[in-house]
Amino acid sequence: MAQGEGGPAALGALLATAVTALADGAAERGGPVPAGTPGELAARWEKRLGTPLPEHGTGAAAALAEVTRLLAAGAADPADPACAGHLHCPPLAVAVAADMAASALNPSLDSWDQAPAATTVERSVVAALAGLAGYDPAAASGVVTTGGTESNLMGLLLARDHAVARHSGVSAARSGIPAGVRPRVLCSRAAHFSIARAAGFIGLGEDAVIAVPTDSGHRMDPAALDAELTALRRRGELPVAIVATAGTTDLGAVDPLPRIAGIAAAHGTRLHVDAAYGGGALFSDRLRLLLAGLEAADTITLDLHKFGWQPVAAGVFLARERAAFEPLDRQVAYLNPEDDEEAGYTSLLGHSLRTTRRPDAAKIAVTLKALGRTGLGALVDRCHDLARHAAGAIAAHPRLALYAPPTLSTVVFRYVPADVPEDVVDAVNARLRRRLLREGLAVVGRTTAPDPTTGREAVQLKLTLLNPDTEPRTVDALLAAVVRAGERETP
Amino acid sequence: MAQGEGGPAALGALLATAVTALADGAAERGGPVPAGTPGELAARWEKRLGTPLPEHGTGAAAALAEVTRLLAAGAADPADPACAGHLHCPPLAVAVAADMAASALNPSLDSWDQAPAATTVERSVVAALAGLAGYDPAAASGVVTTGGTESNLMGLLLARDHAVARHSGVSAARSGIPAGVRPRVLCSRAAHFSIARAAGFIGLGEDAVIAVPTDSGHRMDPAALDAELTALRRRGELPVAIVATAGTTDLGAVDPLPRIAGIAAAHGTRLHVDAAYGGGALFSDRLRLLLAGLEAADTITLDLHKFGWQPVAAGVFLARERAAFEPLDRQVAYLNPEDDEEAGYTSLLGHSLRTTRRPDAAKIAVTLKALGRTGLGALVDRCHDLARHAAGAIAAHPRLALYAPPTLSTVVFRYVPADVPEDVVDAVNARLRRRLLREGLAVVGRTTAPDPTTGREAVQLKLTLLNPDTEPRTVDALLAAVVRAGERETP
Ligand SMILES: Cc1ncc(COP(=O)(O)O)c(C=O)c1O
Ligand SMILES: Cc1ncc(COP(=O)(O)O)c(C=O)c1O
Repeated sequence: MAQGEGGPAALGALLATAVTALADGAAERGGPVPAGTPGELAARWEKRLGTPLPEHGTGAAAALAEVTRLLAAGAADPADPACAGHLHCPPLAVAVAADMAASALNPSLDSWDQAPAATTVERSVVAALAGLAGYDPAAASGVVTTGGTESNLMGLLLARDHAVARHSGVSAARSGIPAGVRPRVLCSRAAHFSIARAAGFIGLGEDAVIAVPTDSGHRMDPAALDAELTALRRRGELPVAIVATAGTTDLGAVDPLPRIAGIAAAHGTRLHVDAAYGGGALFSDRLRLLLAGLEAADTITLDLHKFGWQPVAAGVFLARERAAFEPLDRQVAYLNPEDDEEAGYTSLLGHSLRTTRRPDAAKIAVTLKALGRTGLGALVDRCHDLARHAAGAIAAHPRLALYAPPTLSTVVFRYVPADVPEDVVDAVNARLRRRLLREGLAVVGRTTAPDPTTGREAVQLKLTLLNPDTEPRTVDALLAAVVRAGERETP
Repeated sequence: MAQGEGGPAALGALLATAVTALADGAAERGGPVPAGTPGELAARWEKRLGTPLPEHGTGAAAALAEVTRLLAAGAADPADPACAGHLHCPPLAVAVAADMAASALNPSLDSWDQAPAATTVERSVVAALAGLAGYDPAAASGVVTTGGTESNLMGLLLARDHAVARHSGVSAARSGIPAGVRPRVLCSRAAHFSIARAAGFIGLGEDAVIAVPTDSGHRMDPAALDAELTALRRRGELPVAIVATAGTTDLGAVDPLPRIAGIAAAHGTRLHVDAAYGGGALFSDRLRLLLAGLEAADTITLDLHKFGWQPVAAGVFLARERAAFEPLDRQVAYLNPEDDEEAGYTSLLGHSLRTTRRPDAAKIAVTLKALGRTGLGALVDRCHDLARHAAGAIAAHPRLALYAPPTLSTVVFRYVPADVPEDVVDAVNARLRRRLLREGLAVVGRTTAPDPTTGREAVQLKLTLLNPDTEPRTVDALLAAVVRAGERETP
């Protein structure tokens, strides 16, 4: 066991084994990502893993070294500057060490008596982040989640129960959605797909989501939002929530929060802001103005495993008022009986969709204290600088086309071979990306974005620059590799 | 950063700092749980934490040592034999070390190019556990989850979409639940509350759950189940799923799986088995017969952070047939575009409710390999032995009353002072448990269970014995402490 008698010594030795295996695996990999086709690689790794559940074990040290080395050799390493495909950050060593301590202690936040101090630490981290978001920490509340997807799900779920209770006087959690009620959710076309998925999960159906058009800056068009709200009211439908995005996944676009908040208030509709990506700007003196108006949101999604350099998971869901959590209140005889709660043994059970829950707040607490707001802000700024550098280099290159100027730390662009039709350009970009992967050279992102003139969804490449240690010249080298791969893929 | 140049060295040093702080904090605590009232303790810890988000950081080592020490000093340590309140296991050192490696590499399972080898490892772990459950690993599929709650939610969600599609030919995920359809879920009275909660989350409403009576062994009564199914059909309602529990939270009771499977088949209704706790019996030669019939389930919840000695989270959701996951299929331009999938870059995105997802399979893989099936089975058997020992000691004690013989590793009982009315017995048991907590002596569990003669829900105490290193005489000492605290709380 990790704790108890002899625990720390055994744990220390095994941690050293794991660190060595990580280094060995990284050396074996020798680049940002293992070279080979996915089929070849999977076959090789399956063989190397052998029987995953043997009758008799091979012992702790051998199993740990073997599997860890394989995972490292087969990783797409976010700490490598050529690994820039996704909102997939390199974690800080201090956050990894804190996460290990959380694993060793193994508190679970569903009852006080499984997590006495961890409960205090989560409350305190949530209050600090609520304050950073502009909320009154004494009135606000929140919870640590597995990520933006769970936070967005919570935002819609609590909004569903709130809207249905106000409209029909019944609890949707208890009785389902009453007959004749047609709940709707409004977000921009560029909102993350987890919004529609959540609507599907909670019984509204994905079709309940109205995708509001965006302006030329890829931000939700407030006039269109207002018109949609008016129209749905006329149809007798029930607006459950407006979801604004503060930092879209591809372009980092921030919806106009103050205007949207005004419209939400005028229509009496709840406002959820998905700041999973853009929330990191709150740490930065230079970028935080982008998020002005965030404090008017009823609920907010933040995500410290994006801008925040935490190992997954480090999601945060915030509510301006504690009362927003009421639909999740629950008394369970074996977890939080009434007389225990009266005696002060309160827990975070009623704040989460989960029961057993790992204290991901621990690593966040350590990181916030270790770096401070300005320390994290400096890392955000460095990534923003890298994105501006990349955009400049792309704009200056004859064979690269920048899709839009960067807002946060992503850059969307594509390789444009001379004299080939549009659909071939799509295929070349898709193929050059796979070539870079297959050759073990780089992880470049990919998405589609509408052509500004024709509206056609075109394949684009994307750099997501989340490694503050990356040098501008390494970004230049990465772009050069994109061009070379593009040349080889051009028919 | 944890990886990259200089990463492993920095990480190694910080891990050593954390291990020292864990030991220092445990020494400071000096028992299974910190002594004091929750109010006093929270005030002390808040003061010690100070400002959680300072303007300027205090540096990595200082912040890590400080917060880790506080978390350890304020932990309810599951590695202490007197910490026996919940399904809250002491984690194996080897699993903690593997979890650390997962944090350092930080793969995310929502796309191949964030987690090449981790994707293979998860697939392989899931196949091994599917085989252990009696499924054909080649036909089955599954996913690692945050726990029983998420797995049960998945079971109901997929069952909802399956039942609605078959009944009405529409996708509930896309269009919501059609008007006039009244979906129902059937489980026993002793099922975990996450079943009802999930029904509330997915839009059926908690009232959709029919709590089927249990027999004298606290197992679902199959005749009553059959009658409920027939009655609801007559009312024109739609049975979405039968949920059987294999190992109830308090008593470890296992519903009669073969008979329930027969009823599910006869009514054409999906069967989900919640084996979050009892699934551990699959490792044990002595106990695995309890789970005969499990292979007839359509979907299964397992949980290796209970019987499995993993740090949270280590939930598993299995489906007998891959097709069960279809409602979660999704093509996302930036994650899994069609031509990338055709080129072999497939991911586990369509297996999970989450997007970004930590590879909790890594620690499970290492543990399965390190201990093997028989090694884990031996740990399960030792906990089962401890429970039987405890039950014997309770039965022999004049002031303790055993509620039921143990099935797995929980023992439900209570302290019975002489000559006091029933409601006072309840209060004495509740108070003696809080006294043990407040004095830092023990974490004993608590629940309610119906009196076999009057049916009245009475407060009961519970030992959840998940520490295989505990000696029988330590269990005796724990029971003696319960009796002493009971004497002091008796009016
Ligand atoms: C804007 C936005 N919201 C939500 C999410 C989902 O977050 P997660 O992957 O942590 O669940 C993402 C993920 O990229 C995102 O970019
Ligand atoms: C039978 C059963 N099912 C489900 C759960 C929920 O599991 P988790 O807490 O991992 O979400 C529990 C938790 O104790 C349980 O005992």
